[in-house]
Amino acid sequence: MQVAMIGDKIVPLAELEPIYSDRGTYFGDGVYEVLRSYNGKIFALEEHLQRFARSLSEIGIVSVDIDQVRSRIKKAFDAAGISNARIYLHITRGSAPRSHTWKADLKPNFFLTIIELSDSSEEKSKGIAVSTHPDWRWKRCDIKSLNLLANVLARQDAEQKGCAEAILVDDADLITEGAGSAFFAVFGQRLQTAPLTANILPSITRKFVIKAAKNIGLEVVEKSLPPQQARDADELFIAVTTKDIVPVVKFDGKVIGAGKPGRYTKLLMQEFCSFTL
Amino acid sequence: MQVAMIGDKIVPLAELEPIYSDRGTYFGDGVYEVLRSYNGKIFALEEHLQRFARSLSEIGIVSVDIDQVRSRIKKAFDAAGISNARIYLHITRGSAPRSHTWKADLKPNFFLTIIELSDSSEEKSKGIAVSTHPDWRWKRCDIKSLNLLANVLARQDAEQKGCAEAILVDDADLITEGAGSAFFAVFGQRLQTAPLTANILPSITRKFVIKAAKNIGLEVVEKSLPPQQARDADELFIAVTTKDIVPVVKFDGKVIGAGKPGRYTKLLMQEFCSFTL
Repeated sequence: MQVAMIGDKIVPLAELEPIYSDRGTYFGDGVYEVLRSYNGKIFALEEHLQRFARSLSEIGIVSVDIDQVRSRIKKAFDAAGISNARIYLHITRGSAPRSHTWKADLKPNFFLTIIELSDSSEEKSKGIAVSTHPDWRWKRCDIKSLNLLANVLARQDAEQKGCAEAILVDDADLITEGAGSAFFAVFGQRLQTAPLTANILPSITRKFVIKAAKNIGLEVVEKSLPPQQARDADELFIAVTTKDIVPVVKFDGKVIGAGKPGRYTKLLMQEFCSFTL
Repeated sequence: MQVAMIGDKIVPLAELEPIYSDRGTYFGDGVYEVLRSYNGKIFALEEHLQRFARSLSEIGIVSVDIDQVRSRIKKAFDAAGISNARIYLHITRGSAPRSHTWKADLKPNFFLTIIELSDSSEEKSKGIAVSTHPDWRWKRCDIKSLNLLANVLARQDAEQKGCAEAILVDDADLITEGAGSAFFAVFGQRLQTAPLTANILPSITRKFVIKAAKNIGLEVVEKSLPPQQARDADELFIAVTTKDIVPVVKFDGKVIGAGKPGRYTKLLMQEFCSFTL
Protein backbone atom coordinates (compact mmCIF):
# COMPACT_ATOMS: atom_id res chain seq x y z
CA MET A 1 0.00 0.00 0.00
CA GLN A 2 1.32 3.44 -0.93
CA VAL A 3 1.54 5.57 2.19
CA ALA A 4 2.23 9.05 3.45
CA MET A 5 3.53 9.98 6.88
CA ILE A 6 2.86 13.31 8.56
CA GLY A 7 4.91 13.61 11.73
CA ASP A 8 4.36 10.20 13.36
CA LYS A 9 1.10 9.43 11.62
CA ILE A 10 0.95 7.04 8.68
CA VAL A 11 -1.98 7.42 6.27
CA PRO A 12 -2.81 5.71 2.98
CA LEU A 13 -1.52 7.91 0.18
CA ALA A 14 -4.93 7.84 -1.47
CA GLU A 15 -6.42 9.60 1.57
CA LEU A 16 -3.82 12.38 1.70
CA GLU A 17 -5.32 15.87 1.49
CA PRO A 18 -4.24 17.69 -1.71
CA ILE A 19 -2.56 20.51 0.24
CA TYR A 20 0.18 18.03 1.25
CA SER A 21 0.94 17.41 -2.43
CA ASP A 22 1.14 21.09 -3.29
CA ARG A 23 3.94 21.72 -5.78
CA GLY A 24 4.51 24.92 -3.83
CA THR A 25 5.98 22.80 -1.06
CA TYR A 26 7.69 20.14 -3.18
CA PHE A 27 9.41 22.60 -5.51
CA GLY A 28 8.53 26.18 -4.54
CA ASP A 29 6.61 25.94 -7.81
CA GLY A 30 4.55 29.07 -7.50
CA VAL A 31 4.64 32.86 -7.44
CA TYR A 32 3.44 35.45 -4.95
CA GLU A 33 2.68 39.08 -4.32
CA VAL A 34 2.53 41.29 -1.24
CA LEU A 35 0.28 44.35 -1.29
CA ARG A 36 -0.74 46.81 1.33
CA SER A 37 -3.56 49.22 1.94
CA TYR A 38 -3.31 52.76 3.21
CA ASN A 39 -6.37 53.87 5.13
CA GLY A 40 -8.74 51.38 3.57
CA LYS A 41 -7.44 51.62 0.01
CA ILE A 42 -5.26 48.99 -1.64
CA PHE A 43 -2.13 50.64 -3.04
CA ALA A 44 -1.00 49.98 -6.62
CA LEU A 45 -3.32 47.00 -7.10
CA GLU A 46 -3.09 47.05 -10.89
CA GLU A 47 0.72 47.26 -10.86
CA HIS A 48 0.88 44.24 -8.53
CA LEU A 49 -1.61 42.29 -10.65
CA GLN A 50 0.40 43.06 -13.77
CA ARG A 51 3.63 41.81 -12.16
CA PHE A 52 1.81 38.75 -10.81
CA ALA A 53 0.53 37.93 -14.30
CA ARG A 54 4.06 38.20 -15.65
CA SER A 55 5.49 35.94 -12.92
CA LEU A 56 2.80 33.33 -13.63
CA SER A 57 3.51 33.50 -17.34
CA GLU A 58 7.29 33.24 -16.90
CA ILE A 59 6.96 29.92 -15.05
CA GLY A 60 4.30 28.61 -17.41
CA ILE A 61 1.21 28.78 -15.18
CA VAL A 62 -1.15 29.79 -17.94
CA SER A 63 -4.68 29.06 -16.74
CA VAL A 64 -5.07 31.83 -14.16
CA ASP A 65 -7.72 34.49 -14.73
CA ILE A 66 -6.26 37.75 -13.37
CA ASP A 67 -9.74 39.28 -13.16
CA GLN A 68 -10.66 36.48 -10.78
CA VAL A 69 -7.53 37.17 -8.73
CA ARG A 70 -8.46 40.85 -8.53
CA SER A 71 -11.99 40.09 -7.39
CA ARG A 72 -10.75 37.57 -4.80
CA ILE A 73 -8.34 40.15 -3.38
CA LYS A 74 -11.11 42.74 -3.16
CA LYS A 75 -13.59 40.30 -1.66
CA ALA A 76 -11.12 39.17 1.02
CA PHE A 77 -10.04 42.77 1.71
CA ASP A 78 -13.67 43.79 2.21
CA ALA A 79 -14.30 40.79 4.46
CA ALA A 80 -11.23 41.59 6.57
CA GLY A 81 -12.15 45.23 7.04
CA ILE A 82 -8.61 46.15 8.04
CA SER A 83 -7.67 49.70 7.17
CA ASN A 84 -3.90 49.30 7.04
CA ALA A 85 -3.53 45.74 5.87
CA ARG A 86 -0.81 43.51 4.48
CA ILE A 87 -2.22 41.33 1.73
CA TYR A 88 -0.17 38.26 0.84
CA LEU A 89 -1.17 35.92 -1.96
CA HIS A 90 0.35 33.08 -3.89
CA ILE A 91 -0.63 30.74 -6.65
CA THR A 92 1.12 27.41 -6.98
CA ARG A 93 1.01 25.16 -10.01
CA GLY A 94 -1.31 22.80 -8.16
CA SER A 95 -1.38 19.56 -6.20
CA ALA A 96 -0.08 16.38 -7.82
CA PRO A 97 2.11 13.36 -7.07
CA ARG A 98 5.71 14.58 -6.92
CA SER A 99 7.24 14.81 -10.39
CA HIS A 100 9.34 17.66 -11.78
CA THR A 101 7.29 17.89 -14.96
CA TRP A 102 3.65 18.89 -14.90
CA LYS A 103 0.53 18.11 -16.84
CA ALA A 104 -1.17 20.89 -18.77
CA ASP A 105 -4.54 20.35 -17.06
CA LEU A 106 -3.23 20.77 -13.50
CA LYS A 107 -5.40 23.17 -11.51
CA PRO A 108 -3.47 25.96 -9.73
CA ASN A 109 -3.93 26.53 -5.99
CA PHE A 110 -4.82 30.04 -4.79
CA PHE A 111 -3.94 31.17 -1.27
CA LEU A 112 -4.17 34.57 0.41
CA THR A 113 -3.86 36.08 3.86
CA ILE A 114 -4.76 39.53 5.13
CA ILE A 115 -3.30 40.74 8.41
CA GLU A 116 -2.85 44.10 10.10
CA LEU A 117 0.38 45.77 9.11
CA SER A 118 2.87 45.84 11.91
CA ASP A 119 3.91 49.29 13.07
CA SER A 120 7.05 50.49 11.29
CA SER A 121 7.01 54.09 12.54
CA GLU A 122 10.12 53.66 14.69
CA GLU A 123 12.11 52.10 11.82
CA LYS A 124 10.96 54.89 9.55
CA SER A 125 11.76 57.70 11.95
CA LYS A 126 15.07 56.42 13.34
CA GLY A 127 16.35 54.36 10.44
CA ILE A 128 17.68 50.82 10.45
CA ALA A 129 21.00 49.01 10.35
CA VAL A 130 21.70 46.63 7.45
CA SER A 131 24.41 44.05 6.78
CA THR A 132 25.65 42.50 3.55
CA HIS A 133 25.34 38.84 2.58
CA PRO A 134 26.38 36.97 -0.58
CA ASP A 135 23.54 36.85 -3.09
CA TRP A 136 22.85 33.11 -3.25
CA ARG A 137 19.55 33.45 -5.12
CA TRP A 138 18.71 31.84 -8.42
CA LYS A 139 19.24 33.56 -11.77
CA ARG A 140 15.62 34.57 -12.35
CA CYS A 141 14.95 36.98 -9.50
CA ASP A 142 12.82 39.00 -11.91
CA ILE A 143 10.22 36.29 -11.18
CA LYS A 144 8.60 36.71 -7.75
CA SER A 145 8.71 33.00 -6.96
CA LEU A 146 8.36 30.93 -3.79
CA ASN A 147 12.04 29.91 -4.02
CA LEU A 148 13.12 32.17 -1.17
CA LEU A 149 15.50 30.12 0.93
CA ALA A 150 18.47 32.32 -0.03
CA ASN A 151 16.50 35.38 1.08
CA VAL A 152 15.50 33.67 4.32
CA LEU A 153 19.07 32.67 5.21
CA ALA A 154 20.41 36.15 4.40
CA ARG A 155 17.71 37.85 6.48
CA GLN A 156 18.32 35.53 9.44
CA ASP A 157 22.04 36.27 9.20
CA ALA A 158 21.24 39.98 9.31
CA GLU A 159 19.00 39.54 12.34
CA GLN A 160 21.77 37.69 14.16
CA LYS A 161 23.97 40.72 13.51
CA GLY A 162 21.31 43.03 14.95
CA CYS A 163 20.31 44.28 11.51
CA ALA A 164 16.84 44.68 10.04
CA GLU A 165 17.69 43.79 6.43
CA ALA A 166 20.32 41.90 4.45
CA ILE A 167 21.79 43.65 1.41
CA LEU A 168 22.73 41.07 -1.20
CA VAL A 169 26.07 41.24 -2.98
CA ASP A 170 26.75 39.25 -6.14
CA ASP A 171 29.93 37.54 -7.35
CA ALA A 172 31.03 40.73 -9.12
CA ASP A 173 30.95 42.50 -5.73
CA LEU A 174 27.93 44.56 -6.71
CA ILE A 175 24.81 45.11 -4.64
CA THR A 176 21.73 43.60 -6.28
CA GLU A 177 19.01 44.43 -3.75
CA GLY A 178 17.83 43.69 -0.23
CA ALA A 179 16.61 40.21 0.78
CA GLY A 180 13.10 41.63 0.78
CA SER A 181 13.49 45.18 -0.50
CA ALA A 182 14.98 47.44 -3.15
CA PHE A 183 18.14 49.33 -2.19
CA PHE A 184 18.96 52.99 -2.87
CA ALA A 185 21.90 55.30 -2.27
CA VAL A 186 22.01 59.09 -2.42
CA PHE A 187 25.22 60.87 -3.46
CA GLY A 188 24.75 64.63 -3.52
CA GLN A 189 21.62 65.18 -5.60
CA ARG A 190 21.89 61.82 -7.33
CA LEU A 191 19.77 58.76 -6.44
CA GLN A 192 21.38 55.45 -7.42
CA THR A 193 19.90 51.94 -7.58
CA ALA A 194 20.62 48.74 -9.51
CA PRO A 195 19.12 48.52 -13.02
CA LEU A 196 16.34 45.99 -13.62
CA THR A 197 17.92 42.77 -14.87
CA ALA A 198 17.13 39.07 -14.47
CA ASN A 199 18.78 39.29 -11.02
CA ILE A 200 16.50 42.04 -9.72
CA LEU A 201 12.86 41.96 -8.76
CA PRO A 202 10.97 44.70 -10.59
CA SER A 203 9.84 46.32 -7.35
CA ILE A 204 6.62 48.34 -7.49
CA THR A 205 7.81 50.49 -4.60
CA ARG A 206 11.08 51.11 -6.50
CA LYS A 207 9.01 52.47 -9.39
CA PHE A 208 7.20 54.94 -7.12
CA VAL A 209 10.47 55.93 -5.41
CA ILE A 210 11.94 56.81 -8.81
CA LYS A 211 8.83 58.83 -9.61
CA ALA A 212 9.13 60.62 -6.27
CA ALA A 213 12.82 61.30 -6.89
CA LYS A 214 12.08 62.92 -10.22
CA ASN A 215 9.32 64.99 -8.62
CA ILE A 216 11.72 66.44 -6.05
CA GLY A 217 14.45 67.08 -8.61
CA LEU A 218 16.90 64.28 -7.89
CA GLU A 219 18.89 62.78 -10.75
CA VAL A 220 18.17 59.05 -10.99
CA VAL A 221 21.00 56.70 -12.00
CA GLU A 222 20.26 53.01 -12.55
CA LYS A 223 23.68 51.48 -11.99
CA SER A 224 24.84 48.77 -9.61
CA LEU A 225 27.16 49.84 -6.86
CA PRO A 226 29.70 47.94 -4.78
CA PRO A 227 29.35 47.78 -0.97
CA GLN A 228 32.43 49.97 -0.44
CA GLN A 229 30.69 52.78 -2.38
CA ALA A 230 27.46 52.29 -0.45
CA ARG A 231 29.40 52.80 2.78
CA ASP A 232 30.41 56.24 1.56
CA ALA A 233 26.93 57.34 0.42
CA ASP A 234 25.41 60.50 1.86
CA GLU A 235 22.16 58.64 2.45
CA LEU A 236 20.90 55.07 2.09
CA PHE A 237 17.42 53.61 2.24
CA ILE A 238 15.44 50.53 1.34
CA ALA A 239 12.02 50.40 -0.30
CA VAL A 240 9.46 47.69 0.38
CA THR A 241 5.72 47.48 -0.15
CA THR A 242 4.78 47.08 3.50
CA LYS A 243 6.80 50.09 4.74
CA ASP A 244 7.51 52.05 1.54
CA ILE A 245 10.76 53.94 2.35
CA VAL A 246 12.90 52.99 5.36
CA PRO A 247 16.10 54.99 5.99
CA VAL A 248 19.33 53.04 6.47
CA VAL A 249 21.61 54.66 9.04
CA LYS A 250 24.18 51.90 9.44
CA PHE A 251 25.72 49.74 6.72
CA ASP A 252 27.91 46.80 7.86
CA GLY A 253 28.59 48.71 11.07
CA LYS A 254 29.54 51.96 9.31
CA VAL A 255 27.39 54.96 10.30
CA ILE A 256 25.84 56.59 7.22
CA GLY A 257 25.70 60.38 7.01
CA ALA A 258 24.82 61.79 10.41
CA GLY A 259 23.44 58.44 11.65
CA LYS A 260 19.88 59.55 11.16
CA PRO A 261 17.48 59.69 8.18
CA GLY A 262 18.93 62.00 5.54
CA ARG A 263 17.41 65.09 4.00
CA TYR A 264 16.50 63.59 0.62
CA THR A 265 15.28 60.35 2.17
CA LYS A 266 12.81 62.35 4.26
CA LEU A 267 11.73 64.40 1.23
CA LEU A 268 11.20 61.16 -0.72
CA MET A 269 9.12 59.73 2.16
CA GLN A 270 6.94 62.84 2.08
CA GLU A 271 6.56 62.70 -1.68
CA PHE A 272 5.79 58.97 -1.57
CA CYS A 273 3.16 59.66 1.05
CA SER A 274 1.35 61.92 -1.39
CA PHE A 275 0.93 58.97 -3.77
CA THR A 276 -0.93 57.02 -1.12
CA LEU A 277 -3.58 59.60 -0.25
CA MET B 1 -10.63 40.36 11.32
CA GLN B 2 -7.48 38.77 9.92
CA VAL B 3 -8.47 36.32 7.19
CA ALA B 4 -7.12 33.66 4.88
CA MET B 5 -8.58 32.69 1.53
CA ILE B 6 -8.16 29.25 -0.02
CA GLY B 7 -9.53 29.25 -3.54
CA ASP B 8 -12.85 31.06 -3.16
CA LYS B 9 -13.27 30.30 0.52
CA ILE B 10 -12.57 32.94 3.17
CA VAL B 11 -11.74 31.71 6.68
CA PRO B 12 -10.64 33.51 9.84
CA LEU B 13 -6.84 33.39 9.96
CA ALA B 14 -7.02 31.99 13.48
CA GLU B 15 -8.80 28.89 12.15
CA LEU B 16 -6.31 28.20 9.35
CA GLU B 17 -4.74 24.73 9.55
CA PRO B 18 -0.97 24.89 10.20
CA ILE B 19 -0.13 23.11 6.92
CA TYR B 20 -1.20 26.27 5.06
CA SER B 21 1.40 28.28 6.96
CA ASP B 22 4.20 25.82 6.25
CA ARG B 23 7.44 27.69 5.58
CA GLY B 24 8.07 24.97 3.01
CA THR B 25 5.41 26.62 0.85
CA TYR B 26 6.10 30.25 1.74
CA PHE B 27 9.85 30.03 1.17
CA GLY B 28 10.85 26.50 0.15
CA ASP B 29 12.35 26.58 3.63
CA GLY B 30 13.11 22.90 4.02
CA VAL B 31 15.26 20.03 2.79
CA TYR B 32 14.46 16.63 1.35
CA GLU B 33 15.77 13.21 0.43
CA VAL B 34 14.73 10.53 -2.03
CA LEU B 35 15.63 6.92 -1.27
CA ARG B 36 14.73 3.67 -2.89
CA SER B 37 14.57 0.03 -1.93
CA TYR B 38 15.78 -2.92 -3.97
CA ASN B 39 13.84 -6.09 -3.25
CA GLY B 40 12.64 -5.07 0.16
CA LYS B 41 15.86 -3.44 1.35
CA ILE B 42 16.40 0.33 1.56
CA PHE B 43 19.56 1.25 -0.32
CA ALA B 44 22.23 3.45 1.29
CA LEU B 45 19.98 4.57 4.13
CA GLU B 46 22.85 5.80 6.30
CA GLU B 47 24.42 7.79 3.46
CA HIS B 48 21.08 9.51 2.79
CA LEU B 49 20.54 10.23 6.50
CA GLN B 50 24.02 11.71 6.75
CA ARG B 51 23.38 14.01 3.77
CA PHE B 52 19.96 14.92 5.16
CA ALA B 53 21.53 15.87 8.51
CA ARG B 54 24.04 18.06 6.69
CA SER B 55 21.32 19.80 4.64
CA LEU B 56 19.31 20.47 7.81
CA SER B 57 22.37 21.86 9.54
CA GLU B 58 23.36 24.08 6.60
CA ILE B 59 20.01 25.88 6.69
CA GLY B 60 19.95 26.07 10.48
CA ILE B 61 17.23 23.52 11.27
CA VAL B 62 18.89 22.23 14.40
CA SER B 63 16.26 20.43 16.44
CA VAL B 64 15.80 17.31 14.30
CA ASP B 65 16.69 13.93 15.78
CA ILE B 66 18.13 11.86 12.91
CA ASP B 67 17.51 8.65 14.85
CA GLN B 68 13.84 9.55 14.89
CA VAL B 69 13.94 10.21 11.12
CA ARG B 70 15.54 6.78 10.59
CA SER B 71 12.91 5.03 12.69
CA ARG B 72 10.08 6.88 10.92
CA ILE B 73 11.44 5.86 7.51
CA LYS B 74 11.69 2.23 8.64
CA LYS B 75 8.25 2.26 10.22
CA ALA B 76 6.61 3.72 7.11
CA PHE B 77 8.57 1.37 4.84
CA ASP B 78 7.39 -1.63 6.86
CA ALA B 79 3.81 -0.35 6.81
CA ALA B 80 3.91 0.15 3.03
CA GLY B 81 5.27 -3.33 2.34
CA ILE B 82 6.45 -2.30 -1.14
CA SER B 83 9.47 -4.22 -2.34
CA ASN B 84 10.81 -1.72 -4.88
CA ALA B 85 9.76 1.55 -3.37
CA ARG B 86 10.54 5.22 -3.82
CA ILE B 87 10.76 6.91 -0.44
CA TYR B 88 10.46 10.69 -0.47
CA LEU B 89 10.77 12.75 2.70
CA HIS B 90 11.15 16.36 3.62
CA ILE B 91 11.45 18.42 6.75
CA THR B 92 10.47 22.07 6.68
CA ARG B 93 11.34 24.64 9.32
CA GLY B 94 7.76 24.57 10.55
CA SER B 95 4.47 26.43 10.33
CA ALA B 96 4.33 30.09 11.35
CA PRO B 97 2.91 33.42 10.19
CA ARG B 98 4.89 34.50 7.12
CA SER B 99 8.13 36.23 8.10
CA HIS B 100 11.58 35.65 6.58
CA THR B 101 13.22 35.26 9.97
CA TRP B 102 12.34 32.41 12.26
CA LYS B 103 12.11 31.81 15.99
CA ALA B 104 14.43 29.29 17.58
CA ASP B 105 11.58 27.27 19.13
CA LEU B 106 9.74 26.64 15.85
CA LYS B 107 8.81 22.95 15.48
CA PRO B 108 9.86 21.40 12.14
CA ASN B 109 7.29 19.59 9.98
CA PHE B 110 8.07 16.03 8.84
CA PHE B 111 6.50 14.61 5.69
CA LEU B 112 7.13 11.37 3.81
CA THR B 113 5.59 9.35 1.00
CA ILE B 114 6.29 5.83 -0.17
CA ILE B 115 5.16 4.75 -3.62
CA GLU B 116 6.00 1.94 -5.99
CA LEU B 117 8.94 2.79 -8.22
CA SER B 118 7.89 3.32 -11.78
CA ASP B 119 9.41 0.93 -14.30
CA SER B 120 12.61 2.32 -15.82
CA SER B 121 13.71 -0.84 -17.64
CA GLU B 122 13.13 0.62 -21.09
CA GLU B 123 15.08 3.81 -20.29
CA LYS B 124 17.88 1.69 -18.88
CA SER B 125 18.04 -0.73 -21.78
CA LYS B 126 17.59 1.72 -24.67
CA GLY B 127 19.02 4.89 -23.18
CA ILE B 128 17.51 8.36 -23.11
CA ALA B 129 17.84 11.67 -24.93
CA VAL B 130 18.86 14.76 -22.93
CA SER B 131 18.92 18.46 -23.72
CA THR B 132 20.86 21.31 -22.16
CA HIS B 133 19.37 24.24 -20.26
CA PRO B 134 21.01 27.21 -18.50
CA ASP B 135 21.67 26.43 -14.84
CA TRP B 136 19.40 28.95 -13.12
CA ARG B 137 19.66 27.38 -9.68
CA TRP B 138 20.82 29.12 -6.53
CA LYS B 139 24.42 29.10 -5.37
CA ARG B 140 24.03 26.44 -2.68
CA CYS B 141 23.06 23.37 -4.67
CA ASP B 142 25.14 21.32 -2.23
CA ILE B 143 22.07 21.71 0.02
CA LYS B 144 19.19 19.43 -1.04
CA SER B 145 16.55 22.10 -0.51
CA LEU B 146 12.95 22.55 -1.60
CA ASN B 147 13.95 25.49 -3.84
CA LEU B 148 13.59 23.52 -7.05
CA LEU B 149 11.80 25.82 -9.48
CA ALA B 150 14.90 26.12 -11.70
CA ASN B 151 15.07 22.32 -11.87
CA VAL B 152 11.35 22.09 -12.64
CA LEU B 153 11.52 24.63 -15.48
CA ALA B 154 14.60 22.95 -16.98
CA ARG B 155 13.02 19.51 -16.83
CA GLN B 156 9.79 20.73 -18.41
CA ASP B 157 11.81 22.36 -21.19
CA ALA B 158 13.53 19.01 -21.79
CA GLU B 159 10.22 17.18 -21.90
CA GLN B 160 8.92 19.63 -24.48
CA LYS B 161 11.97 18.74 -26.58
CA GLY B 162 11.20 15.04 -26.21
CA CYS B 163 14.03 14.55 -23.73
CA ALA B 164 14.00 12.70 -20.42
CA GLU B 165 16.43 14.94 -18.55
CA ALA B 166 17.80 18.49 -18.68
CA ILE B 167 21.57 18.88 -18.38
CA LEU B 168 22.37 22.17 -16.68
CA VAL B 169 25.06 24.46 -18.05
CA ASP B 170 26.48 27.32 -15.99
CA ASP B 171 27.62 30.82 -17.03
CA ALA B 172 31.14 29.52 -17.69
CA ASP B 173 29.65 27.10 -20.26
CA LEU B 174 30.38 24.10 -18.08
CA ILE B 175 27.97 21.29 -17.27
CA THR B 176 27.12 21.18 -13.57
CA GLU B 177 24.69 18.24 -13.40
CA GLY B 178 21.25 17.10 -14.49
CA ALA B 179 18.09 18.77 -13.19
CA GLY B 180 17.53 15.66 -11.08
CA SER B 181 20.63 13.55 -11.62
CA ALA B 182 24.42 13.45 -11.73
CA PHE B 183 26.00 13.52 -15.19
CA PHE B 184 28.89 11.38 -16.46
CA ALA B 185 30.91 11.11 -19.65
CA VAL B 186 33.22 8.30 -20.76
CA PHE B 187 36.22 9.09 -22.97
CA GLY B 188 38.21 5.95 -23.72
CA GLN B 189 38.84 4.38 -20.30
CA ARG B 190 38.29 7.60 -18.44
CA LEU B 191 35.11 8.49 -16.55
CA GLN B 192 34.55 12.22 -16.13
CA THR B 193 32.10 14.12 -13.91
CA ALA B 194 31.96 17.55 -12.29
CA PRO B 195 33.79 17.94 -8.96
CA LEU B 196 31.72 18.46 -5.80
CA THR B 197 31.42 22.20 -5.23
CA ALA B 198 28.71 24.47 -3.79
CA ASN B 199 26.98 24.22 -7.19
CA ILE B 200 26.72 20.43 -7.16
CA LEU B 201 24.56 18.13 -5.08
CA PRO B 202 26.72 15.50 -3.38
CA SER B 203 24.85 12.66 -5.07
CA ILE B 204 24.86 9.33 -3.24
CA THR B 205 24.45 7.48 -6.54
CA ARG B 206 27.45 9.42 -7.91
CA LYS B 207 29.52 8.07 -5.02
CA PHE B 208 28.56 4.49 -5.85
CA VAL B 209 29.14 5.07 -9.58
CA ILE B 210 32.67 6.24 -8.80
CA LYS B 211 33.21 3.16 -6.65
CA ALA B 212 31.90 0.96 -9.46
CA ALA B 213 34.18 2.73 -11.96
CA LYS B 214 37.24 2.06 -9.85
CA ASN B 215 36.19 -1.59 -9.44
CA ILE B 216 36.08 -2.09 -13.20
CA GLY B 217 39.36 -0.28 -13.79
CA LEU B 218 38.18 3.07 -15.19
CA GLU B 219 40.19 6.16 -14.43
CA VAL B 220 37.94 8.70 -12.65
CA VAL B 221 38.44 12.41 -13.38
CA GLU B 222 36.46 14.98 -11.41
CA LYS B 223 36.50 17.92 -13.78
CA SER B 224 33.68 19.97 -15.29
CA LEU B 225 33.18 19.64 -19.02
CA PRO B 226 31.56 21.94 -21.56
CA PRO B 227 28.58 20.73 -23.62
CA GLN B 228 30.63 20.62 -26.83
CA GLN B 229 32.96 18.07 -25.21
CA ALA B 230 30.03 16.04 -23.92
CA ARG B 231 28.72 15.78 -27.49
CA ASP B 232 31.95 14.06 -28.47
CA ALA B 233 32.06 11.61 -25.58
CA ASP B 234 32.23 7.88 -26.30
CA GLU B 235 29.48 7.28 -23.75
CA LEU B 236 27.24 9.41 -21.55
CA PHE B 237 24.96 8.51 -18.69
CA ILE B 238 23.09 10.03 -15.77
CA ALA B 239 22.88 8.68 -12.23
CA VAL B 240 19.87 9.08 -9.99
CA THR B 241 18.69 7.27 -6.88
CA THR B 242 15.45 5.96 -8.33
CA LYS B 243 17.04 4.41 -11.47
CA ASP B 244 20.75 4.28 -10.59
CA ILE B 245 22.49 4.43 -14.00
CA VAL B 246 20.58 5.49 -17.14
CA PRO B 247 22.50 5.59 -20.45
CA VAL B 248 22.29 8.78 -22.51
CA VAL B 249 22.22 8.08 -26.24
CA LYS B 250 21.34 11.52 -27.54
CA PHE B 251 22.69 14.88 -26.34
CA ASP B 252 21.06 18.02 -27.74
CA GLY B 253 20.07 16.00 -30.79
CA LYS B 254 23.55 14.56 -31.39
CA VAL B 255 23.71 10.75 -31.30
CA ILE B 256 26.27 9.53 -28.75
CA GLY B 257 28.53 6.62 -29.65
CA ALA B 258 26.51 4.01 -31.54
CA GLY B 259 23.20 5.41 -30.32
CA LYS B 260 22.80 2.69 -27.74
CA PRO B 261 24.12 2.11 -24.21
CA GLY B 262 27.90 1.94 -24.31
CA ARG B 263 30.19 -0.86 -23.16
CA TYR B 264 31.45 0.78 -19.96
CA THR B 265 28.02 2.14 -19.09
CA LYS B 266 26.69 -1.43 -19.17
CA LEU B 267 29.62 -2.70 -17.13
CA LEU B 268 29.00 0.05 -14.57
CA MET B 269 25.30 -0.86 -14.41
CA GLN B 270 26.27 -4.48 -13.71
CA GLU B 271 28.76 -3.47 -11.06
CA PHE B 272 26.27 -1.07 -9.47
CA CYS B 273 23.74 -3.88 -9.39
CA SER B 274 26.10 -5.92 -7.24
CA PHE B 275 25.99 -3.18 -4.57
CA THR B 276 22.24 -3.52 -4.29
CA LEU B 277 22.06 -7.26 -3.65
